[in-house]
Amino acid sequence: MKKVKIALLGLGNVGRGVWMILNSNKEEIMKRSGYEVEVAKILVRDISKPRGVEVPLGLLTTDFNDIINDDEIKIIVEVMGGIEPAREYMIAAMDKKKHIVTANKMLLATGGDELFEKADKEGVMFNYEASVAGGIPIINGINESLTANKVERLYGIVNGTTNYILTKMAFDGLDFNDALKEAQEMGYAEADPTSDIEGFDSQYKLAILSSLAFGTKIKIEDVYREGITKIESVDIQYAKEFKKVIKLLAIVKDNDGRLELRVHPTMIPENHPLANVYDSFNAVLIKGNAVGDLMFYGRGAGDLPTGSAVVSDVVSILRSNIEIENLNPVVKNNLWVKEISDISEIDSKYYMRLTVADRPGVLGEISSVVGENNVSLRSVIQKGLDVENENKVTIVLVTHMTKEGNIKSAIEELYKLDAVYKINNFIRMEDFN
Amino acid sequence: MKKVKIALLGLGNVGRGVWMILNSNKEEIMKRSGYEVEVAKILVRDISKPRGVEVPLGLLTTDFNDIINDDEIKIIVEVMGGIEPAREYMIAAMDKKKHIVTANKMLLATGGDELFEKADKEGVMFNYEASVAGGIPIINGINESLTANKVERLYGIVNGTTNYILTKMAFDGLDFNDALKEAQEMGYAEADPTSDIEGFDSQYKLAILSSLAFGTKIKIEDVYREGITKIESVDIQYAKEFKKVIKLLAIVKDNDGRLELRVHPTMIPENHPLANVYDSFNAVLIKGNAVGDLMFYGRGAGDLPTGSAVVSDVVSILRSNIEIENLNPVVKNNLWVKEISDISEIDSKYYMRLTVADRPGVLGEISSVVGENNVSLRSVIQKGLDVENENKVTIVLVTHMTKEGNIKSAIEELYKLDAVYKINNFIRMEDFN
Ligand SMILES: NC(=O)c1ccc[n+]([C@@H]2O[C@H](COP(=O)([O-])OP(=O)(O)OC[C@H]3O[C@@H](n4cnc5c(N)ncnc54)[C@H](OP(=O)(O)O)[C@@H]3O)[C@@H](O)[C@H]2O)c1
Ligand SMILES: NC(=O)c1ccc[n+]([C@@H]2O[C@H](COP(=O)([O-])OP(=O)(O)OC[C@H]3O[C@@H](n4cnc5c(N)ncnc54)[C@H](OP(=O)(O)O)[C@@H]3O)[C@@H](O)[C@H]2O)c1
Repeated sequence: MKKVKIALLGLGNVGRGVWMILNSNKEEIMKRSGYEVEVAKILVRDISKPRGVEVPLGLLTTDFNDIINDDEIKIIVEVMGGIEPAREYMIAAMDKKKHIVTANKMLLATGGDELFEKADKEGVMFNYEASVAGGIPIINGINESLTANKVERLYGIVNGTTNYILTKMAFDGLDFNDALKEAQEMGYAEADPTSDIEGFDSQYKLAILSSLAFGTKIKIEDVYREGITKIESVDIQYAKEFKKVIKLLAIVKDNDGRLELRVHPTMIPENHPLANVYDSFNAVLIKGNAVGDLMFYGRGAGDLPTGSAVVSDVVSILRSNIEIENLNPVVKNNLWVKEISDISEIDSKYYMRLTVADRPGVLGEISSVVGENNVSLRSVIQKGLDVENENKVTIVLVTHMTKEGNIKSAIEELYKLDAVYKINNFIRMEDFN
Repeated sequence: MKKVKIALLGLGNVGRGVWMILNSNKEEIMKRSGYEVEVAKILVRDISKPRGVEVPLGLLTTDFNDIINDDEIKIIVEVMGGIEPAREYMIAAMDKKKHIVTANKMLLATGGDELFEKADKEGVMFNYEASVAGGIPIINGINESLTANKVERLYGIVNGTTNYILTKMAFDGLDFNDALKEAQEMGYAEADPTSDIEGFDSQYKLAILSSLAFGTKIKIEDVYREGITKIESVDIQYAKEFKKVIKLLAIVKDNDGRLELRVHPTMIPENHPLANVYDSFNAVLIKGNAVGDLMFYGRGAGDLPTGSAVVSDVVSILRSNIEIENLNPVVKNNLWVKEISDISEIDSKYYMRLTVADRPGVLGEISSVVGENNVSLRSVIQKGLDVENENKVTIVLVTHMTKEGNIKSAIEELYKLDAVYKINNFIRMEDFN
């Protein structure tokens, strides 16, 4: 049996998962890759930290030079996260013709191009399956299995934390803060949950997926972003009345060469496959012009699921025959140039919740302001008195398809009405047609 | 741009889809594969047959020699189906160092080994993504993305015809025959539907998937098979009362090295992801020891979805650099030896529907016979009088987990009771724990 040495940068959640899998599934990996994989070094910040896995102390190092200067180490597994020094280390490793596996969505979404180009130049493989949706092989799916398709649309639930929170709000009637607290207690949300709940994490992932699916360069700023902090239990209740559920969706649509890219809470039909993705599970639905609807569902985070994706990336490098240089070119993601739509240009249906004065004629006033802005209403429902103020009532509007620009100007105009106290929320709706 | 010539064997449903995709997505395929793909020849039986697509007449041939003797043709796409001459043609093509893409599940399930070995020997690629679950990249998923896992279980809805029939029975209240007729009118079922409704098609597919997932040789006879013809509307109604739905599942479980392989109608919880796979959609759920639950969902048949899988297989050959010989070894499927369990050894819960005499004490008699056979009952429900005979009543039993052998002997003993007129049905239940 041939042997290969690899190094891990990082032994946190994912690093631990990788270590455990390499040990417990050693035989599977050997038979499938043709190699016995030996972890020769592991880079950490603090050697004395308890690790929760039994790793021979001699493997740990805080000095990257121990790794970069070891010519026997052929593959670098970057699971440390962050921009620097992860970027610098990967560039240095590729200089030494080491192949790379990374799980670093933040770095890929913000500086992926430099890394892809470097890998291409050095003829090394650069794999990143774990960077989006953890254990779900969505990168491989797009890069290898959808090659015969024009991708038309992609919808993803790619953040487990927010999906867990929204599930708890919907099923256990928790409000946002309590659901977040529970997610933190369960280890699904970080102490600082901003990246998840404000949609940054989903934004990174959508940028990566869209770059691949459309073979084009997507910058983070191209992706419109809203988090879930504005979702209240009452919105979820009203959604239920319309047979909808609210999910944080990452959406990209190709409208004749112009891409709209957006991450925001979305009301979707309750019988749609994505509506049935609960808790911390992730799923990505892709519509290809040949394959139709294709969905991938599974665990988007966690030590073992993410480790599974990382180790499969290692196996794929081993199988592609690492002894030959310049073998497998990196999948190119600059094949097409696409225009990016502004969020005001998208077409959608909208749900809107308002607090208005409880007097005759208000519904009429609202309807006509909305109509003047070219928004046609599908339904207007008065939801009863405000609990705190008996002169106020809640109104829920649902629109037909319209440009987001129209909704924004309608909202501006609505605020000018004396009878409108507050526009509590507006949520985009998607029916996947 | 480099050019490559390929040939199609067959221009039926799938062949047509391949032709359409190669034309409509020409630019995508070129950019992603690095090749302009030219279909140089198409083998058919009858040149004069109307084809529904515009194919230059000069491309059609009824003589395989036109293809096999053309050294410029590098890839053979076998979409003719059947055992012979498909097998013979593929072997001959590999002799000439041509790479193969096939969609032929029947041939793979019954004689795949010979073909894999031949491909390995000749150093040609042999791809067959379309053979299972049409457009869903489940073969690639298992072969490339689950390499870090021990697969523990796999559950598939891999036959669109039967899923369509069961969906119609459940939602539109049709009985089996009417649902089948509708499936035929919609083009989802063949004039002779035996292979689908009796579970042969699913049996082939499970044999292929299991061979790959467990790296072992699975023979068709290793897979226990039951079709859906015995399912009556009333069973679907009773299932609903237990919050279950009935699906034709292809199941494989690895019990410490012994595989149980079976295709049969199965009652599953209505909120499970597989329960929400409707109409002719397919889905495959895999439980890996690292990745956990992973599900692939999409179109399991049809010209374009199946063509999508076929063409992605062509692209993957082109990308692996066809100019170099003996490049990518075929994924081996004889890595492990597994024992196969007999169906009598499986553990399951069971639903049973009986017609019994309407007199006091019958429930007690039944319960004790069942108990004597080591089957413990979870519920016994009397469902009211038989419509045709007022002396008969319907009883529905649901058991706890037990060996199938126990159920079979219980059924034998039950038939010996005077009070038991008929055991109308028994259906395995699965709760995915
Ligand atoms: N967690 C998931 O489920 C998941 C899923 C998909 C992708 N990812 C991605 O995977 C990566 C790792 O995530 P994680 O959750 O495993 O992170 P983590 O638990 O914070 O672990 C990070 C590891 O990297 C080490 N490290 C960080 N900076 C270092 C430095 N400058 N020098 C040396 N060592 C350093 C840390 O060392 P010490 O232990 O000594 O502090 C720690 O072992 C991130 O890019 C993340 O986005 C994570
Ligand atoms: N249909 C699906 O959705 C689907 C999905 C997955 C996999 N598959 C598999 O794909 C394969 C093709 O299925 P299909 O539905 O496309 O079949 P089909 O519609 O019956 O087409 C078969 C084609 O092969 C040609 N052919 C058959 N035997 C031949 C022979 N001896 N010599 C020359 N040409 C011959 C036929 O020629 P003529 O046209 O002249 O008769 C026809 O064009 C099968 O293995 C099937 O299991 C099908």
